[in-house]
Amino acid sequence: MTPEKRFDFLRAWFQQIALLQSASDTLEWDAHTGLAAQAGPYRADQISFLRGLIHQRRTDPRVGEHLQELQGSALAADVHSPEGATIAHLLKDYQRDCRLPQSLVEALSRGTTVGQQHWEAARRADSFSQFSPALQTIVKLKREAAAHLQQGRQTLYEALLEEYEPGCNCELLQNVFSQLQQQLVPLVQQIQSAPRQPDLGILRRRFPIDAQRRFSRWVAEAIGFDFQRGRLDETVHPFCTSLGPHDCRILSRYEQHWFPGGFFGTLHEAGHGMYDQGLPTQWYGLPPGSFASLGIHESQSRLWENLIGRSQAFWSWNFPHARAAFPDALTDVTVQQMHFAVNAVRPSLIRVEADEATYNLHIIIRFQLEQALVEGDLQVDDLPTAWDEKFRQYLGIAAPTVADGVLQDVHWSAGLIGYFPTYTLGNLYSAQLLETASAELPQWERSISAGQFQPLLHWLRENIHHHGRIWQPAELMLRVTGTPLGCDALIRSLCTRYQQLYGW
Amino acid sequence: MTPEKRFDFLRAWFQQIALLQSASDTLEWDAHTGLAAQAGPYRADQISFLRGLIHQRRTDPRVGEHLQELQGSALAADVHSPEGATIAHLLKDYQRDCRLPQSLVEALSRGTTVGQQHWEAARRADSFSQFSPALQTIVKLKREAAAHLQQGRQTLYEALLEEYEPGCNCELLQNVFSQLQQQLVPLVQQIQSAPRQPDLGILRRRFPIDAQRRFSRWVAEAIGFDFQRGRLDETVHPFCTSLGPHDCRILSRYEQHWFPGGFFGTLHEAGHGMYDQGLPTQWYGLPPGSFASLGIHESQSRLWENLIGRSQAFWSWNFPHARAAFPDALTDVTVQQMHFAVNAVRPSLIRVEADEATYNLHIIIRFQLEQALVEGDLQVDDLPTAWDEKFRQYLGIAAPTVADGVLQDVHWSAGLIGYFPTYTLGNLYSAQLLETASAELPQWERSISAGQFQPLLHWLRENIHHHGRIWQPAELMLRVTGTPLGCDALIRSLCTRYQQLYGW
Repeated sequence: MTPEKRFDFLRAWFQQIALLQSASDTLEWDAHTGLAAQAGPYRADQISFLRGLIHQRRTDPRVGEHLQELQGSALAADVHSPEGATIAHLLKDYQRDCRLPQSLVEALSRGTTVGQQHWEAARRADSFSQFSPALQTIVKLKREAAAHLQQGRQTLYEALLEEYEPGCNCELLQNVFSQLQQQLVPLVQQIQSAPRQPDLGILRRRFPIDAQRRFSRWVAEAIGFDFQRGRLDETVHPFCTSLGPHDCRILSRYEQHWFPGGFFGTLHEAGHGMYDQGLPTQWYGLPPGSFASLGIHESQSRLWENLIGRSQAFWSWNFPHARAAFPDALTDVTVQQMHFAVNAVRPSLIRVEADEATYNLHIIIRFQLEQALVEGDLQVDDLPTAWDEKFRQYLGIAAPTVADGVLQDVHWSAGLIGYFPTYTLGNLYSAQLLETASAELPQWERSISAGQFQPLLHWLRENIHHHGRIWQPAELMLRVTGTPLGCDALIRSLCTRYQQLYGW
Repeated sequence: MTPEKRFDFLRAWFQQIALLQSASDTLEWDAHTGLAAQAGPYRADQISFLRGLIHQRRTDPRVGEHLQELQGSALAADVHSPEGATIAHLLKDYQRDCRLPQSLVEALSRGTTVGQQHWEAARRADSFSQFSPALQTIVKLKREAAAHLQQGRQTLYEALLEEYEPGCNCELLQNVFSQLQQQLVPLVQQIQSAPRQPDLGILRRRFPIDAQRRFSRWVAEAIGFDFQRGRLDETVHPFCTSLGPHDCRILSRYEQHWFPGGFFGTLHEAGHGMYDQGLPTQWYGLPPGSFASLGIHESQSRLWENLIGRSQAFWSWNFPHARAAFPDALTDVTVQQMHFAVNAVRPSLIRVEADEATYNLHIIIRFQLEQALVEGDLQVDDLPTAWDEKFRQYLGIAAPTVADGVLQDVHWSAGLIGYFPTYTLGNLYSAQLLETASAELPQWERSISAGQFQPLLHWLRENIHHHGRIWQPAELMLRVTGTPLGCDALIRSLCTRYQQLYGW
């Protein structure tokens, strides 16, 4: 069999897997958009059956055989060609899939299903001890999985991190996160004691849900989300998923008396969605048509939500439209007041509601705790105490309940350990990307003031989206920005904006 | 292997098939509720891939082997026990699936995909000749399929009909349909020349879409559709589908200036939905948990839409609620006027918009034409002329365009030949069922005037829903009503209602 034939087999095979995967993702999307109360258990059966079929196909011995044979072929020579990257990534994925014993995969699947149920109940009861045994099981299983997945000199935590941010390591994260923390803590203090403070009250006025829906959709379309190839729906926990090469679903939620929730939520998901819509469609389901990493994905959502969506340029364009959409709420508000209000910073308990500056401190806390759990330096039972200590230290506050503290996130109960750092990586990447884009598109702020988002989106398409998963995230960022991962760009961006607004 | 083991294998196997089938149905449902413009082709790929997996599993040789072995076992002895019916139906389905050569299945799949595209284009262009070649192919392939499927003394048409209404035959249909036509044609004429005529104008006032949505949902819930196990959405061509044992989806559509469209459409789909919700859930995906036939399914939708939904008892309960929901439109309308208006009868061109009396004439015409096509007594090219002749004869009108004439229905282009009669069978069954129910529940009209639908629904659950596909439709009807298929009950029901309203 020629290498070309083998490659064609793999391409068709993984395109079939993508058909099953996207069918399963459709079932998940549908489960989050108004599933009938009693339909849940059967839906879980459908999804787990499809997942089983997918796993079978991904670990089919023919996949391994073709990949082994292709490794030495000319097609694999350039690992940054679409074919070479496909072979390299699929081989890595295959070996990873095969390294986990089936019994462990099943135990993890059971453990996290039960884990999420216990987490929900524990959160409702505000009782960590109700969740503790399930989390102990999950940590134990994830440590086992990590031991199977560990490659070379990887730590256990790094073996888990690899799934979400390939090529990343703990030393790098520790260094960057520690610099970030050292600069964010005083920045947040300075903001809190600044002479000017925003009036958050204007964001708590009445913004009718229907008007928010229309306005959010209109803004998502204005910045470049393609509604011919996607849609915007509502759900409890907003997310973005693609159910085909031309079927990107973003989900938001609206609160009548809290404008930023729905508005920035939609910008955030639209940022994710535009990344998906920019991936090479002819490689859908294969590495060149996939996203580079969760961190890169998050960089796209954060860039549009924060760096663009909270910028002065954006609001000078957007504010008249917002006022027309919400005449009652915004008639006596100036663009300056609005821009200041959406840039309010204050330490808070809940990660998903945190502002742009303190958000990263939430992540750093979770990273340090989950790393300690996986490496065996922290016991599950000591987690609530460790959580409170870090919150006092970094944010100066403590949660009155565990429900709003250590139990607030679903991630650990779902076995998503090693995932949190990608949120802050996204923030760091986004600032580095926008600094580079600014240099290459000197008119970008003027364009945005005029409601022209195409130049920036085009730049992101060319530099990030079109490359799919060809490059590792660190390589991709280095190629585009010329600088390694760091927190300077983000701190510069935040300082400039906040200094101007808070006036120190 | 013991018969019990074989049966357990089959049960688990078909439960797996149901997981795939319901996943595929979810993809279809989603395709009809706002799919992005460019997402269609990939969606078709997903569905056809799942269908392929389903077909493979349904025709797996192990299925045939286990069924053969089970045939003589004690489990199969009583064909009306859940196990016996399962074995009998699955064997019949399996043999049917195997009797069609794979090449013909694929040709039909291609032919109907192309057929629907040509039909859409031809309808837009109002040109039958644009559709004619595709329809010729479809008729040819369906004739071939019928020849493979024919059993015993079945005609070609009966072999196709069998898929939708098992055990039905042409002689029976011809007899009943001809009696029905002989009574409907003069009835419609009498109505047209009746002294009193309804004021349709009140139904064309402004009924705000949002209020219609809320009201339809409320009425669907009031008659017994369980929203804990289902939902109501909107689409272009309303339908009902079940995506799991507790996940029934009904779809409706609303027009601001045409109240009956959304209202009776919702009642109709809720009727279908309540049938699905009444099937034995523990047998989901197997014959005892499936519907008996399309005709029986339609009897449930028609019963709630027409026999209940257009009755005086129903409107005496419903009208005050309707007036509260649509104060502007209904403030000067009496319950009598409203009840009369929703019972308007007049010959019209479009089947899906036809009233309860003339609807069946539309079906009889299609039945006669498609039967002639399949039996070789009518050529595709002669179809438009034959269509117009029958419309003049039965309804006294002729379509000014083929788009509103012979091209109005999707069915033939989709290969659904032998399907139309089930609509009128549903009407006939529904009237026979309600006559029997009336005798057993003498208070039923009083209950309905009081908004109590539970007794009637309970009766339908006990007599129809809970039996799934255990009995053939004719057997089931005979068991419940004690009389064979006939049109007397329907004619009696229509005459009583219309005589009272139109006053002759």
